[in-house]
Amino acid sequence: MRLTHFTDYGMRMLMRMASAPDQPFSTADLAAELQLSRNHLAKIMQRLAQAGIVKTRRGGGGGAMLARPPSEIRLGTLVELLEDRQPIVECFSDKNNCTLVGCCSLRNRLQRAEAAFLKELDDSTLADIALPSPPQFN
Amino acid sequence: MRLTHFTDYGMRMLMRMASAPDQPFSTADLAAELQLSRNHLAKIMQRLAQAGIVKTRRGGGGGAMLARPPSEIRLGTLVELLEDRQPIVECFSDKNNCTLVGCCSLRNRLQRAEAAFLKELDDSTLADIALPSPPQFN
Repeated sequence: MRLTHFTDYGMRMLMRMASAPDQPFSTADLAAELQLSRNHLAKIMQRLAQAGIVKTRRGGGGGAMLARPPSEIRLGTLVELLEDRQPIVECFSDKNNCTLVGCCSLRNRLQRAEAAFLKELDDSTLADIALPSPPQFN
Repeated sequence: MRLTHFTDYGMRMLMRMASAPDQPFSTADLAAELQLSRNHLAKIMQRLAQAGIVKTRRGGGGGAMLARPPSEIRLGTLVELLEDRQPIVECFSDKNNCTLVGCCSLRNRLQRAEAAFLKELDDSTLADIALPSPPQFN
């Protein structure tokens, strides 16, 4: 079972942002600190902003910060958002050539399993996984 | 969240084999029926045989059949076997460059979530998802 890099990197950014919720972060600083592509992180930040997870402010002292306290942001919600309906198997995608469509009893069981995965994550919030240590780059 | 094609196709084969547990199947017939690559299915069948899920017999009337009744084969076990320790995110793989190693509280939560995913699937057996209809090609 794999999550996308988009989710993986997005969660790293959020863990870092959760360690200083009142501080605005630039994607450049996050990219340097996490040693990840700035362009990639910028796209992820855009998605998080569109979903209302972070709020962004332009200009000097600007950047992105969490829109709510980390203790109010559940992990399953974040993973589901970042995965953006990533198909578990072929029949969850638009391009489905599976010959078993219509007589498959696995599909709904995979759906329930995915829900159990997200529910387990929803037991924790971003506050639980905030990076504990002060940042290297601040 | 994605499962591999290996798992996806493997489950399709097993669903078909479970609809006629006493019948030996050739990978060629399964490939034709499921409209999937024969080579790919042969590799999957090899893995299933190594794990003792199917038993194979060579020669005329040979092929592969389930080694146990489908009602005794749990779905979580199958998915876990077919996924073969597919890394959920980078730090579950051998090549890990994540800078958060050592201070990450997400990793164990992802592990628990994956366990919840498999546990949910383990509530069902291969008998529950056996294809209901008689095969097109028999």
